[in-house]
Amino acid sequence: MATYNVAPLEKLVEQFEKMPGIGYKTAQRLAYFVLNMPKTEARAFSEAIIEAHEKIHYCKICCNLTDRDLCPVCQSDKRDKSTICVVETPRDAMAMEATNEYKGTYHVLHGAISPLNDIGPDELKIKELLSRLNNENINEVIMATNPTVEGDATAMYLSRLMKPLGIRVTRLAYGIPVGGDLEYADQVTLARALEGRNEL
Amino acid sequence: MATYNVAPLEKLVEQFEKMPGIGYKTAQRLAYFVLNMPKTEARAFSEAIIEAHEKIHYCKICCNLTDRDLCPVCQSDKRDKSTICVVETPRDAMAMEATNEYKGTYHVLHGAISPLNDIGPDELKIKELLSRLNNENINEVIMATNPTVEGDATAMYLSRLMKPLGIRVTRLAYGIPVGGDLEYADQVTLARALEGRNEL
Repeated sequence: MATYNVAPLEKLVEQFEKMPGIGYKTAQRLAYFVLNMPKTEARAFSEAIIEAHEKIHYCKICCNLTDRDLCPVCQSDKRDKSTICVVETPRDAMAMEATNEYKGTYHVLHGAISPLNDIGPDELKIKELLSRLNNENINEVIMATNPTVEGDATAMYLSRLMKPLGIRVTRLAYGIPVGGDLEYADQVTLARALEGRNEL
Repeated sequence: MATYNVAPLEKLVEQFEKMPGIGYKTAQRLAYFVLNMPKTEARAFSEAIIEAHEKIHYCKICCNLTDRDLCPVCQSDKRDKSTICVVETPRDAMAMEATNEYKGTYHVLHGAISPLNDIGPDELKIKELLSRLNNENINEVIMATNPTVEGDATAMYLSRLMKPLGIRVTRLAYGIPVGGDLEYADQVTLARALEGRNEL
Protein backbone atom coordinates (compact mmCIF):
# COMPACT_ATOMS: atom_id res chain seq x y z
CA MET A 1 0.00 0.00 0.00
CA ALA A 2 3.09 2.22 0.25
CA THR A 3 2.59 3.61 -3.22
CA TYR A 4 -0.81 4.91 -2.24
CA ASN A 5 0.25 6.97 0.71
CA VAL A 6 -1.44 10.35 0.38
CA ALA A 7 0.17 12.15 3.31
CA PRO A 8 -2.68 14.46 4.43
CA LEU A 9 -5.14 11.59 4.18
CA GLU A 10 -2.92 9.25 6.20
CA LYS A 11 -2.60 11.95 8.85
CA LEU A 12 -6.36 12.16 9.15
CA VAL A 13 -6.66 8.38 9.31
CA GLU A 14 -4.09 8.34 12.13
CA GLN A 15 -6.10 10.92 14.04
CA PHE A 16 -9.23 8.80 13.87
CA GLU A 17 -7.28 5.66 14.70
CA LYS A 18 -6.26 7.12 18.08
CA MET A 19 -9.87 7.15 19.20
CA PRO A 20 -11.33 4.50 21.46
CA GLY A 21 -12.89 1.54 19.65
CA ILE A 22 -11.73 2.68 16.21
CA GLY A 23 -9.35 0.47 14.23
CA TYR A 24 -7.54 1.15 10.98
CA LYS A 25 -10.40 0.17 8.65
CA THR A 26 -12.97 2.30 10.46
CA ALA A 27 -10.52 5.20 10.69
CA GLN A 28 -10.06 4.97 6.95
CA ARG A 29 -13.81 4.97 6.36
CA LEU A 30 -14.27 8.01 8.60
CA ALA A 31 -11.39 9.87 6.94
CA TYR A 32 -12.90 9.27 3.50
CA PHE A 33 -16.25 10.41 4.82
CA VAL A 34 -14.70 13.66 6.07
CA LEU A 35 -12.94 14.08 2.74
CA ASN A 36 -16.22 13.73 0.89
CA MET A 37 -18.00 16.30 3.06
CA PRO A 38 -18.67 19.69 1.48
CA LYS A 39 -15.89 22.16 2.42
CA THR A 40 -18.18 24.16 4.72
CA GLU A 41 -19.12 21.07 6.72
CA ALA A 42 -15.51 20.02 7.09
CA ARG A 43 -14.72 23.49 8.34
CA ALA A 44 -17.61 23.29 10.83
CA PHE A 45 -16.31 19.95 12.09
CA SER A 46 -12.80 21.30 12.46
CA GLU A 47 -14.07 24.34 14.31
CA ALA A 48 -16.34 22.31 16.58
CA ILE A 49 -13.24 20.53 17.90
CA ILE A 50 -11.40 23.76 18.67
CA GLU A 51 -14.51 25.42 20.04
CA ALA A 52 -15.26 22.55 22.39
CA HIS A 53 -11.70 22.74 23.67
CA GLU A 54 -11.73 26.48 24.13
CA LYS A 55 -15.18 27.04 25.54
CA ILE A 56 -15.69 24.03 27.77
CA HIS A 57 -14.21 24.03 31.24
CA TYR A 58 -15.16 22.77 34.68
CA CYS A 59 -18.08 24.17 36.67
CA LYS A 60 -16.66 26.18 39.56
CA ILE A 61 -18.73 24.24 42.07
CA CYS A 62 -19.19 20.66 40.89
CA CYS A 63 -16.37 20.29 38.32
CA ASN A 64 -18.81 19.05 35.68
CA LEU A 65 -18.31 20.31 32.13
CA THR A 66 -19.91 23.59 31.18
CA ASP A 67 -19.39 26.55 28.88
CA ARG A 68 -20.50 29.08 31.54
CA ASP A 69 -19.32 29.85 35.06
CA LEU A 70 -21.67 27.34 36.63
CA CYS A 71 -23.23 24.24 35.14
CA PRO A 72 -27.03 24.28 34.71
CA VAL A 73 -27.52 22.04 37.75
CA CYS A 74 -25.48 24.20 40.13
CA GLN A 75 -27.12 27.32 38.73
CA SER A 76 -30.69 26.05 39.03
CA ASP A 77 -32.64 27.04 42.15
CA LYS A 78 -34.91 24.02 41.73
CA ARG A 79 -32.20 21.55 42.74
CA ASP A 80 -31.67 20.34 46.29
CA LYS A 81 -28.29 21.83 47.16
CA SER A 82 -27.94 19.76 50.34
CA THR A 83 -27.38 16.47 48.48
CA ILE A 84 -24.31 15.72 46.39
CA CYS A 85 -24.03 12.76 44.05
CA VAL A 86 -20.36 11.94 43.49
CA VAL A 87 -19.62 10.48 40.05
CA GLU A 88 -16.44 9.60 38.18
CA THR A 89 -17.11 11.31 34.84
CA PRO A 90 -19.43 13.88 33.26
CA ARG A 91 -21.06 11.04 31.32
CA ASP A 92 -22.00 9.34 34.58
CA ALA A 93 -23.66 12.58 35.72
CA MET A 94 -25.49 12.64 32.40
CA ALA A 95 -26.69 9.06 32.93
CA MET A 96 -27.99 9.96 36.42
CA GLU A 97 -29.65 13.02 34.99
CA ALA A 98 -31.38 10.90 32.35
CA THR A 99 -33.23 8.95 35.07
CA ASN A 100 -35.16 12.14 35.93
CA GLU A 101 -35.24 10.90 39.52
CA TYR A 102 -32.37 12.75 41.10
CA LYS A 103 -32.95 16.31 42.24
CA GLY A 104 -29.70 17.09 44.08
CA THR A 105 -26.38 18.33 42.71
CA TYR A 106 -23.34 16.45 41.43
CA HIS A 107 -19.66 16.35 42.01
CA VAL A 108 -17.50 15.02 39.20
CA LEU A 109 -14.19 13.49 40.33
CA HIS A 110 -12.83 13.09 36.79
CA GLY A 111 -11.57 9.58 37.45
CA ALA A 112 -11.23 7.07 40.24
CA ILE A 113 -8.34 6.14 42.50
CA SER A 114 -6.22 3.64 40.59
CA PRO A 115 -2.69 2.99 41.85
CA LEU A 116 -1.97 0.85 38.79
CA ASN A 117 -2.51 3.86 36.54
CA ASP A 118 -0.76 6.27 38.89
CA ILE A 119 -3.99 8.00 39.80
CA GLY A 120 -4.07 8.93 43.47
CA PRO A 121 -6.50 11.14 45.40
CA ASP A 122 -4.55 14.26 44.39
CA GLU A 123 -5.31 13.66 40.71
CA LEU A 124 -9.07 13.75 41.40
CA LYS A 125 -11.35 16.64 42.30
CA ILE A 126 -11.43 15.62 45.98
CA LYS A 127 -10.10 18.87 47.43
CA GLU A 128 -12.96 20.64 45.67
CA LEU A 129 -15.47 18.20 47.16
CA LEU A 130 -14.14 18.64 50.68
CA SER A 131 -14.25 22.42 50.42
CA ARG A 132 -17.89 22.13 49.35
CA LEU A 133 -18.61 20.02 52.43
CA ASN A 134 -17.02 22.67 54.62
CA ASN A 135 -18.62 25.70 52.99
CA GLU A 136 -22.05 24.50 51.92
CA ASN A 137 -24.78 22.97 54.03
CA ILE A 138 -24.62 19.32 52.93
CA ASN A 139 -26.79 16.58 54.44
CA GLU A 140 -26.00 13.61 52.26
CA VAL A 141 -23.33 12.49 49.84
CA ILE A 142 -24.33 9.69 47.48
CA MET A 143 -21.33 7.77 46.19
CA ALA A 144 -22.17 6.87 42.59
CA THR A 145 -18.72 5.80 41.45
CA ASN A 146 -18.66 2.72 39.23
CA PRO A 147 -19.07 -0.74 40.78
CA THR A 148 -15.46 -1.62 39.87
CA VAL A 149 -12.39 -2.15 42.06
CA GLU A 150 -11.32 1.45 41.44
CA GLY A 151 -14.78 2.90 41.94
CA ASP A 152 -15.28 0.94 45.17
CA ALA A 153 -11.87 1.99 46.49
CA THR A 154 -12.66 5.62 45.73
CA ALA A 155 -16.03 5.36 47.47
CA MET A 156 -14.43 3.79 50.55
CA TYR A 157 -11.66 6.36 50.64
CA LEU A 158 -14.08 9.27 50.39
CA SER A 159 -16.52 7.87 52.93
CA ARG A 160 -13.70 7.59 55.46
CA LEU A 161 -12.77 11.20 54.82
CA MET A 162 -16.36 12.40 55.13
CA LYS A 163 -17.80 10.33 57.99
CA PRO A 164 -15.91 12.34 60.67
CA LEU A 165 -17.60 15.48 59.33
CA GLY A 166 -20.94 14.05 60.43
CA ILE A 167 -22.29 13.79 56.89
CA ARG A 168 -24.50 10.91 55.78
CA VAL A 169 -22.59 8.99 53.10
CA THR A 170 -24.53 6.47 50.98
CA ARG A 171 -23.66 4.23 48.05
CA LEU A 172 -25.84 3.26 45.05
CA ALA A 173 -27.43 -0.16 45.48
CA TYR A 174 -25.77 -3.15 43.88
CA GLY A 175 -27.98 -5.88 42.50
CA ILE A 176 -29.49 -7.58 39.51
CA PRO A 177 -30.26 -5.18 36.67
CA VAL A 178 -33.96 -4.64 35.97
CA GLY A 179 -35.05 -6.99 33.21
CA GLY A 180 -32.03 -9.18 33.89
CA ASP A 181 -32.07 -12.89 34.52
CA LEU A 182 -30.83 -14.60 37.70
CA GLU A 183 -29.39 -17.35 35.58
CA TYR A 184 -27.11 -14.97 33.72
CA ALA A 185 -26.14 -12.70 36.62
CA ASP A 186 -22.50 -13.15 37.65
CA GLN A 187 -21.77 -14.55 41.10
CA VAL A 188 -20.47 -11.33 42.62
CA THR A 189 -23.52 -9.36 41.54
CA LEU A 190 -25.83 -12.08 42.82
CA ALA A 191 -24.01 -12.24 46.16
CA ARG A 192 -24.31 -8.46 46.48
CA ALA A 193 -27.99 -8.59 45.58
CA LEU A 194 -28.53 -11.15 48.33
CA GLU A 195 -26.56 -9.08 50.81
CA GLY A 196 -28.51 -5.93 50.00
CA ARG A 197 -31.97 -7.60 50.09
CA ASN A 198 -34.91 -5.53 51.26
CA GLU A 199 -38.11 -6.25 53.23
CA LEU A 200 -41.15 -6.73 51.04
CA MET B 1 -30.86 15.38 29.74
CA ALA B 2 -31.86 18.86 28.69
CA THR B 3 -30.34 20.48 31.76
CA TYR B 4 -26.99 19.03 30.84
CA ASN B 5 -26.77 20.50 27.40
CA VAL B 6 -23.31 22.02 27.04
CA ALA B 7 -23.69 23.64 23.61
CA PRO B 8 -20.14 23.28 22.23
CA LEU B 9 -20.02 19.66 23.37
CA GLU B 10 -23.38 18.86 21.79
CA LYS B 11 -22.16 20.42 18.57
CA LEU B 12 -19.15 18.13 18.55
CA VAL B 13 -21.33 15.09 19.34
CA GLU B 14 -23.57 16.01 16.41
CA GLN B 15 -20.57 16.18 14.10
CA PHE B 16 -19.48 12.68 15.05
CA GLU B 17 -23.04 11.40 14.85
CA LYS B 18 -23.20 12.30 11.16
CA MET B 19 -20.48 9.77 10.37
CA PRO B 20 -21.24 6.33 8.96
CA GLY B 21 -21.75 3.61 11.58
CA ILE B 22 -21.61 6.03 14.50
CA GLY B 23 -24.65 6.38 16.74
CA TYR B 24 -25.35 8.81 19.57
CA LYS B 25 -23.56 6.85 22.30
CA THR B 26 -20.40 6.36 20.25
CA ALA B 27 -20.47 9.97 19.10
CA GLN B 28 -20.65 11.01 22.75
CA ARG B 29 -17.71 8.81 23.64
CA LEU B 30 -15.64 10.20 20.79
CA ALA B 31 -16.53 13.79 21.68
CA TYR B 32 -15.45 13.24 25.29
CA PHE B 33 -12.27 11.65 24.03
CA VAL B 34 -11.52 14.71 21.90
CA LEU B 35 -12.31 16.95 24.86
CA ASN B 36 -9.84 15.05 27.02
CA MET B 37 -7.05 15.33 24.45
CA PRO B 38 -4.27 17.78 25.19
CA LYS B 39 -4.91 21.11 23.44
CA THR B 40 -2.08 20.58 20.95
CA GLU B 41 -3.50 17.24 19.85
CA ALA B 42 -6.98 18.65 19.42
CA ARG B 43 -5.52 21.41 17.30
CA ALA B 44 -3.61 18.83 15.22
CA PHE B 45 -6.85 16.87 14.70
CA SER B 46 -8.74 19.99 13.69
CA GLU B 47 -5.99 20.99 11.28
CA ALA B 48 -5.73 17.50 9.79
CA ILE B 49 -9.36 17.82 8.68
CA ILE B 50 -8.80 21.17 6.99
CA GLU B 51 -5.47 20.10 5.53
CA ALA B 52 -6.91 16.93 4.03
CA HIS B 53 -9.64 19.02 2.44
CA GLU B 54 -7.32 21.65 1.09
CA LYS B 55 -4.41 19.54 -0.10
CA ILE B 56 -6.12 16.47 -1.49
CA HIS B 57 -7.56 16.55 -4.98
CA TYR B 58 -7.92 14.22 -7.94
CA CYS B 59 -4.96 12.93 -9.92
CA LYS B 60 -5.03 14.62 -13.34
CA ILE B 61 -4.88 11.29 -15.11
CA CYS B 62 -6.70 8.64 -13.08
CA CYS B 63 -8.88 10.76 -10.74
CA ASN B 64 -7.55 8.95 -7.68
CA LEU B 65 -6.84 11.04 -4.59
CA THR B 66 -3.43 12.67 -4.30
CA ASP B 67 -1.76 15.73 -2.86
CA ARG B 68 0.46 16.25 -5.92
CA ASP B 69 -0.28 16.71 -9.61
CA LEU B 70 -0.20 12.99 -10.34
CA CYS B 71 -0.82 10.08 -8.01
CA PRO B 72 2.17 7.81 -7.30
CA VAL B 73 0.86 5.12 -9.65
CA CYS B 74 0.44 7.44 -12.64
CA GLN B 75 3.81 9.02 -11.90
CA SER B 76 5.71 5.75 -11.57
CA ASP B 77 7.57 4.50 -14.65
CA LYS B 78 7.45 0.94 -13.33
CA ARG B 79 3.72 0.59 -13.97
CA ASP B 80 2.23 -0.80 -17.14
CA LYS B 81 0.49 2.22 -18.63
CA SER B 82 -1.36 0.16 -21.24
CA THR B 83 -3.71 -1.45 -18.71
CA ILE B 84 -6.36 0.46 -16.76
CA CYS B 85 -8.24 -0.98 -13.82
CA VAL B 86 -11.55 0.87 -13.40
CA VAL B 87 -12.74 1.08 -9.78
CA GLU B 88 -15.57 2.88 -8.05
CA THR B 89 -13.67 4.53 -5.17
CA PRO B 90 -10.12 5.33 -4.06
CA ARG B 91 -10.48 2.67 -1.37
CA ASP B 92 -11.14 0.05 -4.03
CA ALA B 93 -7.91 1.09 -5.75
CA MET B 94 -6.15 0.76 -2.40
CA ALA B 95 -7.56 -2.76 -1.96
CA MET B 96 -6.32 -3.74 -5.44
CA GLU B 97 -2.95 -2.21 -4.64
CA ALA B 98 -2.74 -4.26 -1.43
CA THR B 99 -2.79 -7.49 -3.44
CA ASN B 100 0.63 -6.57 -4.87
CA GLU B 101 -0.43 -8.40 -8.03
CA TYR B 102 -1.58 -5.59 -10.25
CA LYS B 103 1.03 -3.61 -12.15
CA GLY B 104 -1.13 -1.43 -14.39
CA THR B 105 -2.78 1.92 -13.66
CA TYR B 106 -6.21 2.78 -12.24
CA HIS B 107 -9.15 4.90 -13.10
CA VAL B 108 -11.41 5.97 -10.25
CA LEU B 109 -15.01 6.66 -11.26
CA HIS B 110 -16.02 8.07 -7.85
CA GLY B 111 -19.25 6.14 -7.76
CA ALA B 112 -21.37 3.83 -9.88
CA ILE B 113 -24.36 4.43 -12.09
CA SER B 114 -27.40 4.41 -9.84
CA PRO B 115 -30.64 5.85 -11.18
CA LEU B 116 -32.29 5.44 -7.76
CA ASN B 117 -29.78 7.86 -6.26
CA ASP B 118 -29.81 10.17 -9.29
CA ILE B 119 -26.29 9.20 -10.31
CA GLY B 120 -25.99 8.96 -14.07
CA PRO B 121 -22.89 8.58 -16.26
CA ASP B 122 -22.33 12.35 -16.18
CA GLU B 123 -21.78 12.31 -12.42
CA LEU B 124 -18.91 9.84 -12.79
CA LYS B 125 -15.39 10.32 -14.17
CA ILE B 126 -16.31 8.61 -17.45
CA LYS B 127 -15.40 11.52 -19.74
CA GLU B 128 -11.91 11.43 -18.23
CA LEU B 129 -11.67 7.68 -18.87
CA LEU B 130 -12.72 8.02 -22.50
CA SER B 131 -10.22 10.78 -23.14
CA ARG B 132 -7.50 8.51 -21.72
CA LEU B 133 -8.57 5.77 -24.14
CA ASN B 134 -8.31 8.20 -27.01
CA ASN B 135 -5.01 9.80 -26.03
CA GLU B 136 -3.06 6.98 -24.42
CA ASN B 137 -2.12 3.64 -25.86
CA ILE B 138 -4.44 1.32 -23.95
CA ASN B 139 -4.63 -2.43 -24.55
CA GLU B 140 -6.93 -3.60 -21.81
CA VAL B 141 -9.47 -2.13 -19.42
CA ILE B 142 -10.28 -4.27 -16.38
CA MET B 143 -13.69 -3.47 -14.93
CA ALA B 144 -13.29 -3.80 -11.16
CA THR B 145 -16.52 -2.12 -10.11
CA ASN B 146 -18.31 -3.82 -7.22
CA PRO B 147 -20.34 -6.99 -7.87
CA THR B 148 -23.59 -5.14 -7.09
CA VAL B 149 -26.46 -4.12 -9.34
CA GLU B 150 -24.95 -0.63 -9.70
CA GLY B 151 -21.41 -1.91 -10.23
CA ASP B 152 -22.56 -4.40 -12.84
CA ALA B 153 -24.63 -1.81 -14.66
CA THR B 154 -21.66 0.55 -14.73
CA ALA B 155 -19.38 -2.18 -16.06
CA MET B 156 -21.89 -3.07 -18.78
CA TYR B 157 -22.41 0.57 -19.74
CA LEU B 158 -18.67 1.21 -19.99
CA SER B 159 -17.91 -1.96 -21.90
CA ARG B 160 -20.49 -1.01 -24.53
CA LEU B 161 -18.83 2.40 -24.84
CA MET B 162 -15.35 0.93 -25.13
CA LYS B 163 -15.79 -2.18 -27.28
CA PRO B 164 -16.21 -0.15 -30.50
CA LEU B 165 -12.80 1.41 -29.80
CA GLY B 166 -11.22 -2.03 -30.22
CA ILE B 167 -10.07 -2.25 -26.63
CA ARG B 168 -10.09 -5.49 -24.68
CA VAL B 169 -12.54 -5.05 -21.79
CA THR B 170 -12.47 -7.62 -18.96
CA ARG B 171 -14.30 -8.01 -15.67
CA LEU B 172 -12.98 -9.36 -12.36
CA ALA B 173 -13.98 -13.01 -11.81
CA TYR B 174 -17.02 -13.77 -9.68
CA GLY B 175 -16.91 -16.84 -7.49
CA ILE B 176 -16.60 -18.36 -4.07
CA PRO B 177 -14.21 -16.38 -1.85
CA VAL B 178 -10.97 -18.20 -0.99
CA GLY B 179 -11.36 -19.96 2.34
CA GLY B 180 -15.15 -19.79 1.95
CA ASP B 181 -17.54 -22.68 2.29
CA LEU B 182 -19.87 -23.89 -0.46
CA GLU B 183 -22.56 -24.47 2.12
CA TYR B 184 -22.60 -20.81 3.14
CA ALA B 185 -22.15 -19.26 -0.30
CA ASP B 186 -25.30 -17.52 -1.50
CA GLN B 187 -27.10 -18.90 -4.54
CA VAL B 188 -26.19 -16.10 -6.92
CA THR B 189 -22.48 -16.33 -6.09
CA LEU B 190 -22.56 -20.09 -6.47
CA ALA B 191 -24.38 -19.84 -9.81
CA ARG B 192 -21.77 -17.35 -11.02
CA ALA B 193 -18.94 -19.58 -9.82
CA LEU B 194 -20.42 -22.45 -11.81
CA GLU B 195 -20.86 -20.29 -14.87
CA GLY B 196 -17.27 -19.06 -14.72
CA ARG B 197 -15.69 -22.48 -14.08
CA ASN B 198 -12.21 -23.12 -15.48
CA GLU B 199 -10.42 -26.15 -16.93
CA LEU B 200 -8.21 -27.93 -14.41
